Amino acid sequence: FDEQESELLGEKLSQLEPEEIAVALEAMPLEQRLSTWLALHPDEQVHALGYMREDARENIFKQLPDAALTELVARMDVDDLIELLDELPDAVYQAACSKLDASEKLWLATALAYTDEQCGRYADHDVLTIRNNAKVRDAVRMFKKLNEDAEYQDSLMVVDRTGRYVGQLHGTRLLGAPSHLPVVEYIDEEAPVVEGEMDLDTGSDIVARSGYSALAVVDDESKLLGRISIGEALENVRRSLEGQFMHTAGLDENEDLFAPVIASAKSRAVWLGINLLTAFLAAWTIGLFEATLQQQVALAVLMPIVASMGGIAGSQTLTLIIRGLALGQITPQTYWTLMRKELGVGLINGVLWAVVICGVTYLWFGDWIIGIVIALAIVINIFVAAFSGVVIPVWLEKARIDPALSGSVILTTVTDVIGFFVFLGLGSLLLLP
Amino acid sequence: FDEQESELLGEKLSQLEPEEIAVALEAMPLEQRLSTWLALHPDEQVHALGYMREDARENIFKQLPDAALTELVARMDVDDLIELLDELPDAVYQAACSKLDASEKLWLATALAYTDEQCGRYADHDVLTIRNNAKVRDAVRMFKKLNEDAEYQDSLMVVDRTGRYVGQLHGTRLLGAPSHLPVVEYIDEEAPVVEGEMDLDTGSDIVARSGYSALAVVDDESKLLGRISIGEALENVRRSLEGQFMHTAGLDENEDLFAPVIASAKSRAVWLGINLLTAFLAAWTIGLFEATLQQQVALAVLMPIVASMGGIAGSQTLTLIIRGLALGQITPQTYWTLMRKELGVGLINGVLWAVVICGVTYLWFGDWIIGIVIALAIVINIFVAAFSGVVIPVWLEKARIDPALSGSVILTTVTDVIGFFVFLGLGSLLLLP
Repeated sequence: FDEQESELLGEKLSQLEPEEIAVALEAMPLEQRLSTWLALHPDEQVHALGYMREDARENIFKQLPDAALTELVARMDVDDLIELLDELPDAVYQAACSKLDASEKLWLATALAYTDEQCGRYADHDVLTIRNNAKVRDAVRMFKKLNEDAEYQDSLMVVDRTGRYVGQLHGTRLLGAPSHLPVVEYIDEEAPVVEGEMDLDTGSDIVARSGYSALAVVDDESKLLGRISIGEALENVRRSLEGQFMHTAGLDENEDLFAPVIASAKSRAVWLGINLLTAFLAAWTIGLFEATLQQQVALAVLMPIVASMGGIAGSQTLTLIIRGLALGQITPQTYWTLMRKELGVGLINGVLWAVVICGVTYLWFGDWIIGIVIALAIVINIFVAAFSGVVIPVWLEKARIDPALSGSVILTTVTDVIGFFVFLGLGSLLLLP
Repeated sequence: FDEQESELLGEKLSQLEPEEIAVALEAMPLEQRLSTWLALHPDEQVHALGYMREDARENIFKQLPDAALTELVARMDVDDLIELLDELPDAVYQAACSKLDASEKLWLATALAYTDEQCGRYADHDVLTIRNNAKVRDAVRMFKKLNEDAEYQDSLMVVDRTGRYVGQLHGTRLLGAPSHLPVVEYIDEEAPVVEGEMDLDTGSDIVARSGYSALAVVDDESKLLGRISIGEALENVRRSLEGQFMHTAGLDENEDLFAPVIASAKSRAVWLGINLLTAFLAAWTIGLFEATLQQQVALAVLMPIVASMGGIAGSQTLTLIIRGLALGQITPQTYWTLMRKELGVGLINGVLWAVVICGVTYLWFGDWIIGIVIALAIVINIFVAAFSGVVIPVWLEKARIDPALSGSVILTTVTDVIGFFVFLGLGSLLLLP
């Protein structure tokens, strides 16, 4: 690729929505990404950045000189600034803050009073508010002033004179309304609200299920902080589920497809190291039975089967429970019913496959006792796997540790260690003279 | 639980949105689920079913006598019927169809002309349409007649006299418009449209990124089929990502948390069976080196480490690539750049951990040659894992096989077989006298 190509690409991208531009930029190797991004219109540059994943965005920031970065940040509004807070060099961030006006500084301070997992931090300030003593004609005037590109702006947020949220005023309900009437006659007070202290996933779910285009975000005195639109809710739901998927492999949801090799190797090394500990623990378990293995080499050949079947069965239960936890479907009332069900499933599949494996083993090694040893080990390991698949994620969730990230390593440790121990232990008991 | 408790629960649930009722019902064991669902208002029964996962819904259908089911289906609209088509007993479905009026029968026939993965099948008929020769007052009248619960209904779909889609008419744009003017002056012709033949994921993405509350779905002659609202798009995006997560463990996204034990054991047995083949292949590879193992039992102790590290490194690459494929980010132009990057990451991490493992192995067994054998095997296996992690999902995607479902089994087969073969092979060469 060259400069010219990037310009052409930039022009093509300009016809897309900012979300699509972001996805397309993330699909480019770093150098091409930068030059294509530079070929975008300055406003699109800012919008596209807002929709990119953190790592991909940082890889653009890193390639920009500080002066260009400062210029870029000057074009951002306060909502962009709040989002990029942690990613900007300190000097650039401070320079941008100093240029905010008084009301923007207040927004910034209010947002920063919440953690980066709470709705209060991300409440969008691009919200149309109207006082509850206004007339219909005032509301109509506000709708008429709306930019054509305004998204999910078909209602106004009504506040009282102290800034407390009162309800929503839907544009369509004002059709044909006499313009001298007060808006209070048309306010929708039924619309749910999102509290600033809720975590972003909960808030996004409320917006998603409300059927409204946007909901108000309020503080603990019900003052209006901003709004979360259905578009933002969808983006949050997507990020959260994508994160769950990436975590199963120990990856961050922000992992950049084209991250520099060194950076990427570093971020993945940790996960490999953790898994290496697990692997050494499994090896140590095997090491306890060196003498047995020397006399019965068939056990060495078969032992990965026991560990693998336990791991697979356990991860099925684990995955089901993680989804249930994410949806808030696992409650103390139903915990034991669920456990009994999973243990039942484990027992049935354990016995079923134990019989098959026993048969194949007999055909292979011509020894019934080896067949019986592996069959017993399979039943026990799959049963333990089902138990662990329920217990581990529930316990991790209680300890506020992400079960999608840590669950599989812990589960594999259990199924490997138990699998090898039971199989080689039974082998030592039944096969050695 | 008893009947009374279920009634209380039913009353509580009635205060929630149908999506929330569906999630709550899925979180209940089967008997309690049925009795709680029965305690709901008939309309809520239908709505909640529409939002439940297929398996959970079927588990309610199975417990209902045919007469009750027929009565239930009689309360459904044609959109519900289309969705439940495959899940209803044939007699019940036929009875319901015979009660549809002519226009509903036409809808049904049109929907069934599309596959169950296309947008045309799921276009929502709950769409307000207006002719392009209408006046503003006609449009205003339509908005005023809207039910208060109507969701994402702040624009009308404009059609010409042959039923061809022309554009959207937003309620807020009509505020203050003279009522005798023709609506054509206010039509938004820029709104994107979804084609009936697009697959549901693509269509949902278009709606999600459009910034509109709903988009028109049209057939290949641009006749209006219905609409997809942002609420439905969000639900589809959620289902699709949840599916990706569940597939990694060989589970269906519809898997019911409280499925009957036998049904659940059956659906999971297949996945265990497939993985057993992989495990036997790995065992067979080990079996090739029985003689070596007998003389060098340390190899048996250490071999799971080689397989495990390859599996973990490979699944990181695999997961990253699957996400990229789902977002349409992997293109032939960037394929080799991506491959070089992943191979680079694999090489760095391979060498890094090989050194560590070599050291630990020396401390454990006091033999440098074993350390060198495992180090070489680790480097080779992690390198092969990175290569396979890119190649396998891309190849599966081309063959139209879901990489989230099949990718991990194939990858594990490769990393197990290569890992054991290289490690034990090198061991035979370097350690045997």
